[in-house]
Amino acid sequence: MARFIKKRSKKTGLPPGTLIHIGEKVSEKTRITLWEYDEKDFKERPLESLDLCFPFKNDPTVTWVNVEGVHQVEILEKLGTCFSLHPLVLEDILNTDQRPKMEEYGNDLYIVLKMLDYDDQKDEVVAEQVSLVLRGNIVFSFQEKGGTLFATLIERVRSGRGRIRKTGADYLTYAILDLVVDHYFLVLEKIGEKIEILEAKLLSDPKASTLQKIQQLKREMLFLRKWVWPLREVLSALERGELAQIQESTRIYLRDVYDHAIQVLDTIEIFREMLSGMVDIYLSSLNNRMNAVMKVLTIIATIFMPLTFLAGVYGMNFKYMPELGWRWGYPIVLLVMLLVGMTMLIIFRRKKWL
Amino acid sequence: MARFIKKRSKKTGLPPGTLIHIGEKVSEKTRITLWEYDEKDFKERPLESLDLCFPFKNDPTVTWVNVEGVHQVEILEKLGTCFSLHPLVLEDILNTDQRPKMEEYGNDLYIVLKMLDYDDQKDEVVAEQVSLVLRGNIVFSFQEKGGTLFATLIERVRSGRGRIRKTGADYLTYAILDLVVDHYFLVLEKIGEKIEILEAKLLSDPKASTLQKIQQLKREMLFLRKWVWPLREVLSALERGELAQIQESTRIYLRDVYDHAIQVLDTIEIFREMLSGMVDIYLSSLNNRMNAVMKVLTIIATIFMPLTFLAGVYGMNFKYMPELGWRWGYPIVLLVMLLVGMTMLIIFRRKKWL
Amino acid sequence: MARFIKKRSKKTGLPPGTLIHIGEKVSEKTRITLWEYDEKDFKERPLESLDLCFPFKNDPTVTWVNVEGVHQVEILEKLGTCFSLHPLVLEDILNTDQRPKMEEYGNDLYIVLKMLDYDDQKDEVVAEQVSLVLRGNIVFSFQEKGGTLFATLIERVRSGRGRIRKTGADYLTYAILDLVVDHYFLVLEKIGEKIEILEAKLLSDPKASTLQKIQQLKREMLFLRKWVWPLREVLSALERGELAQIQESTRIYLRDVYDHAIQVLDTIEIFREMLSGMVDIYLSSLNNRMNAVMKVLTIIATIFMPLTFLAGVYGMNFKYMPELGWRWGYPIVLLVMLLVGMTMLIIFRRKKWL
Amino acid sequence: MARFIKKRSKKTGLPPGTLIHIGEKVSEKTRITLWEYDEKDFKERPLESLDLCFPFKNDPTVTWVNVEGVHQVEILEKLGTCFSLHPLVLEDILNTDQRPKMEEYGNDLYIVLKMLDYDDQKDEVVAEQVSLVLRGNIVFSFQEKGGTLFATLIERVRSGRGRIRKTGADYLTYAILDLVVDHYFLVLEKIGEKIEILEAKLLSDPKASTLQKIQQLKREMLFLRKWVWPLREVLSALERGELAQIQESTRIYLRDVYDHAIQVLDTIEIFREMLSGMVDIYLSSLNNRMNAVMKVLTIIATIFMPLTFLAGVYGMNFKYMPELGWRWGYPIVLLVMLLVGMTMLIIFRRKKWL
Amino acid sequence: MARFIKKRSKKTGLPPGTLIHIGEKVSEKTRITLWEYDEKDFKERPLESLDLCFPFKNDPTVTWVNVEGVHQVEILEKLGTCFSLHPLVLEDILNTDQRPKMEEYGNDLYIVLKMLDYDDQKDEVVAEQVSLVLRGNIVFSFQEKGGTLFATLIERVRSGRGRIRKTGADYLTYAILDLVVDHYFLVLEKIGEKIEILEAKLLSDPKASTLQKIQQLKREMLFLRKWVWPLREVLSALERGELAQIQESTRIYLRDVYDHAIQVLDTIEIFREMLSGMVDIYLSSLNNRMNAVMKVLTIIATIFMPLTFLAGVYGMNFKYMPELGWRWGYPIVLLVMLLVGMTMLIIFRRKKWL
Repeated sequence: MARFIKKRSKKTGLPPGTLIHIGEKVSEKTRITLWEYDEKDFKERPLESLDLCFPFKNDPTVTWVNVEGVHQVEILEKLGTCFSLHPLVLEDILNTDQRPKMEEYGNDLYIVLKMLDYDDQKDEVVAEQVSLVLRGNIVFSFQEKGGTLFATLIERVRSGRGRIRKTGADYLTYAILDLVVDHYFLVLEKIGEKIEILEAKLLSDPKASTLQKIQQLKREMLFLRKWVWPLREVLSALERGELAQIQESTRIYLRDVYDHAIQVLDTIEIFREMLSGMVDIYLSSLNNRMNAVMKVLTIIATIFMPLTFLAGVYGMNFKYMPELGWRWGYPIVLLVMLLVGMTMLIIFRRKKWL
Repeated sequence: MARFIKKRSKKTGLPPGTLIHIGEKVSEKTRITLWEYDEKDFKERPLESLDLCFPFKNDPTVTWVNVEGVHQVEILEKLGTCFSLHPLVLEDILNTDQRPKMEEYGNDLYIVLKMLDYDDQKDEVVAEQVSLVLRGNIVFSFQEKGGTLFATLIERVRSGRGRIRKTGADYLTYAILDLVVDHYFLVLEKIGEKIEILEAKLLSDPKASTLQKIQQLKREMLFLRKWVWPLREVLSALERGELAQIQESTRIYLRDVYDHAIQVLDTIEIFREMLSGMVDIYLSSLNNRMNAVMKVLTIIATIFMPLTFLAGVYGMNFKYMPELGWRWGYPIVLLVMLLVGMTMLIIFRRKKWL
Repeated sequence: MARFIKKRSKKTGLPPGTLIHIGEKVSEKTRITLWEYDEKDFKERPLESLDLCFPFKNDPTVTWVNVEGVHQVEILEKLGTCFSLHPLVLEDILNTDQRPKMEEYGNDLYIVLKMLDYDDQKDEVVAEQVSLVLRGNIVFSFQEKGGTLFATLIERVRSGRGRIRKTGADYLTYAILDLVVDHYFLVLEKIGEKIEILEAKLLSDPKASTLQKIQQLKREMLFLRKWVWPLREVLSALERGELAQIQESTRIYLRDVYDHAIQVLDTIEIFREMLSGMVDIYLSSLNNRMNAVMKVLTIIATIFMPLTFLAGVYGMNFKYMPELGWRWGYPIVLLVMLLVGMTMLIIFRRKKWL
Repeated sequence: MARFIKKRSKKTGLPPGTLIHIGEKVSEKTRITLWEYDEKDFKERPLESLDLCFPFKNDPTVTWVNVEGVHQVEILEKLGTCFSLHPLVLEDILNTDQRPKMEEYGNDLYIVLKMLDYDDQKDEVVAEQVSLVLRGNIVFSFQEKGGTLFATLIERVRSGRGRIRKTGADYLTYAILDLVVDHYFLVLEKIGEKIEILEAKLLSDPKASTLQKIQQLKREMLFLRKWVWPLREVLSALERGELAQIQESTRIYLRDVYDHAIQVLDTIEIFREMLSGMVDIYLSSLNNRMNAVMKVLTIIATIFMPLTFLAGVYGMNFKYMPELGWRWGYPIVLLVMLLVGMTMLIIFRRKKWL
Repeated sequence: MARFIKKRSKKTGLPPGTLIHIGEKVSEKTRITLWEYDEKDFKERPLESLDLCFPFKNDPTVTWVNVEGVHQVEILEKLGTCFSLHPLVLEDILNTDQRPKMEEYGNDLYIVLKMLDYDDQKDEVVAEQVSLVLRGNIVFSFQEKGGTLFATLIERVRSGRGRIRKTGADYLTYAILDLVVDHYFLVLEKIGEKIEILEAKLLSDPKASTLQKIQQLKREMLFLRKWVWPLREVLSALERGELAQIQESTRIYLRDVYDHAIQVLDTIEIFREMLSGMVDIYLSSLNNRMNAVMKVLTIIATIFMPLTFLAGVYGMNFKYMPELGWRWGYPIVLLVMLLVGMTMLIIFRRKKWL
């Protein structure tokens, strides 16, 4: 659970805009990279904290500033001062337990969402908060942990594939959102595979640990839904086209991402109901196995109790028990015992217990 | 599950409009057929990839271009170029994992939905994505797999039955939608029959496999709902009459399809609740059978344990046990045993265990 | 289920407006009756198929044409031609698997709904589709099966009780709707009685068949809701007063029917929750009975196993067992056995198992 | 159930406005009382059926006519005629199975709702229908059964406490609504106490009857919700201030009652979920007890079966069984038996079964 | 339950505005403190009941009057008279069982909500009602119990950290709301920890008391939701900016609190679903343990019943039982017994029961 719910208690009672990092401690240094591109040019340069306040030109060149790691509060603070980002925006960037949302602060469009990835080694969903600030031709992106998540997108910009070099910062924002939602599909595919494996196990060899894994997947679905549901609203608001920062030509692409987000939600709902059905199957298989155990017990008891009773009768020490003296008494009793046993077995076979 | 959830991961990180086929590999070649008709004439001709860019005349004649198979990306690309279809439309046509939706791209009306059929041999629901592009008097339809699904409709156009030859391309669009929704009823009827068969089995001979089949049907209901629910919205939007591409006279027919779609959803809901009720019956029948097994065990134990004890008593080797020497000791004990057994049976009969 | 879900597959692929009867085959002939009335006069006359095209006068006299049985397609077709009913209206009248709805076709107001009755002999709910067409001063009503359902209403018109003779065709439409909704209460009363009987059984003597009956009632509730829910919307639309065909003075009465429909829905919901609670009680009573059975077994085993063991000990054939030679060995052992048995019984009584 | 669902079947097929009393038969005579008050004066006088048509003056004096008992149709009819109440209003007053609602009939505001009280003797919720008609400065109130429910309110008017004597008939209407909703809290408190008692029982001594009582409370919650939910809508409509009959200054008080109604609904929901949780606890306690029973059985069987077998071995009659001749054979076997038994007990203690 | 649902029955039938304290009896005296501050100055002074009617100046200085304890009705009454607070406001302040809400009374903005805290000693959630009245530059706050809840906020004002000293009374109102919602996160963190502890117990050692604790947490979630849900509406209304009392610049901060409230609700929902999943795990673990018990019983019975029977056979007293006379009869029988036992064990191992 610690993976999903973070401690906010540090902030209780502090004034709004107080910059405190909420989230996992990351030891790496914050890395800031800046890309500038237009249809002809593409420049990449790492930013040192010294030159954070680079001169900002509102010309057709698109500027993308990517910040990897938000735990170094002082760097974020400096950046905020240089570009006069709203204190609440800075606070939300540092607090990595945000609900996905979109907000306008003057000309800035602030979007926060969750990037998901599937960590094959730890076999679990890894979530990272991504904040975007769109202002004119500049896009700031803040990654909670950093890493190679934006690599394919940067490569696309560099190579000039697709429309991205011919379009503005709003299209870049769209491209980042698209990348994030595409990763949701990746994660859902992984979870779909885990569900299939669990289902096979459920039928071949149901164990208590299987139920636990089902419940764990159900829980991950809860968190996925918690993150994707508000994103849907964000995308819907972006696509509706009432925002000055989004050009008309980009809206058609946002509608596409919006559709994908809905599809992600549909799949989450279906997975949830599948997992619920699996709990039912598990519980009934427990019942079935209990039934099987009880049948074995009943068959054994039903066969041997009458036989043991019979043996007990002829083990009595009465003086006058004529059968005991009979020449064929013993074989007859053995035969009777055999008959009783066989009859029981036939009855059980009739009842389909065997 | 592979039948319903398709791998989208190939597309992660690619620019929008990149044409990649997502779906089952189909080996057959893409077939393109063109029909032209008006009230008097009807012409059919297969299109080779060479003459895909046929001259497009916007005269009262309705033109219907049907593409069977969307896996040959280059043909789709050529068609897209000839008729300048929007890249996102082409991308969605190739991606056979779309959520049903309707979108306007300039004068084009793009509709995507799921055609369902019931494969009697494999005993399962077969889904195929159908995309429609309505532009003026021309309708493009794209079938994921192709086949005879449109046969009855083409025959109707050819023979000139009904109003279809007297109306425009919007009515043709309606007719295709109507055909698709009619097939939903076919599929639901089949599923209804399967539910009835399962119910009979549930009462006569409940097995673990019965529960599995119930859960499988529940799952198919989930996917049906996933496909029909957004279609309802599509039809509602078409019927509301705010689209230039749809003529007033066609709206009354679209309202009819819309009603049918709602009825399909109603039936899906009812099937879902019936299947849930069946799970309850299954679980309680497991319990009932356990009860029956336990009763047998208890009856046997309750009858023979006291008797065996009695036999054990007279099997003791004490020197001074006067009963052992009695002349009628043995018969009396046998009689007592009979009485004890009978009493037990009577008690069980009173308790309605027998 | 066949009672509630009808085969629509006959219609797949046919053009809209194709007249095909969907529903149970009824052998009786279609009967058509015509009533004309105003404040002073009341005339009844049966219509032969010859004079279906009776001259239609739009004077203050209200004309009510009731068609019993919709399986004779040719008669419906003729009526449709005479009065130029819309083909989709005719198609819907013949298709007795309609969802309740209201539609305007030019000046015609088309309403379709389900008349319910309780067949005491078959002990089940009987549904019949009723279609109404309101055009000016004429009301067409189409009953799926016919019968005496409208008898009380016709008698009321004939005798001139109430306001009906003083009002127009819209009030007649209201009166029919009111009659239908009143029958829903009748049906719910019957189902309420069945629920009470089932509940009594559930406590006195729960059986597998009781659960089946509960599930069956739950299912009937599903269909009732499916029919009444859309009717509520129909009545709401009628009552809202945006329809030219409905006079202002009639709206107050429609509001009344609308209230009744909501009350029917409330009762359906309550019945559904009651039935769900009954499933819980049933399952727990199964558990309770299993508990009772297990207790009997445990008591028997706990009493007789130690005793049998004791008897077994003194049944051993060791040479040196001093007890066997004691004068009072046997009575002492019997006494010990008695004490052990009594102790067990006291323990069970303490545990409240007895 | 008869307490909550009333027979409406008497009314099937009758014209609207037909006055038939639906509800429990009450033998007492209908009592009508009239109060007139303004800031200075307060007059009370019982009304005989003779002077029902008292002259109605629309002066600042507020007139309140309270009718206790609605089963005497002829008195209601006369009152209706004198004051020309709408026939549908009269019908609804007589039909004591109304859903709470508010309706305007010309200048009349008709409100119907359920007064609840807790009958400590019968230990059940008692419901009574109260109808209010507000016309100018006169308020008619109709109680299904009559009784002392309005006593505190009348006393308040008489003594002139609070604002009531300084305000108009709309404030009186508010005061009645407030009284009714206050009684809902009383009833909920009683039910809350019952839930607490049941919960204690559930833990100390769960019985089948406990489950039944839980289900019964759940059912009472269903009916409470059925009555309060629409009342919320009524109060919301009154409070919204679009009604000419309600003065601006009264709205603030109606908002207060509206808040209380929502709080009643909140509490009902919470009670419902608590009761559902109690069903879970009950079912799991059944399981726990079964577990306990099974453990006793298993412990007894596991201890005595091996011992009995051992005794059986030395009860065999083979000629050559050297142990039987040993001097210390018997004590050794007894010792072995003791050891086996002790070992079993230790194992069970390790498994925490003891 | 008494902790959450309070007795309102004292108020039944009383006129609105009657001041009666509803809630727990608190013995401490009501304490009233007044703070006045602007950008330069900060003054604190305790108010005696004598000088409650301090002169109220509507200058830029913000005045904050905090009342700790609302059980001394006469003090509240005096304050109400001095500042002419609306009687309904006073009544709601005294009634500590309010649903969170916001209401406008003329220029006064009245907000009531629940302050939550986690009492580590009693190990339970502690709720306290906080009422706020915002009038121009003055804020009245009423705490049900008083205590140090506002301490951090007062300290912040005193030290002049953040924006609070530069802003008006609306910002102070925001700061109080923010503090309250921050405490919700604290409480949720505590509950999250309790859930984790319960989960660990559920797997290691499930007991009936574990289920009870789960149900208790579920119930606390019900009450949390009941208090936070309406607060969300209050914050949404404040943030929407239609209130004259809230300045434009404060709205951005209220939007922030609104986001937090939604996040609290999200977490509550997730906790609720987690707790439901834990009930499933608990029930299935009960079943699993029963299974384990039954297996032990069955294994014991299946091994020893046949052996005891065999011993019984050779304990019979027939004269002619040749085996009894054999030299190696006894060892052979012992060997057969060993073989039978071993075979049984192997079978159980194959079935994975051991």
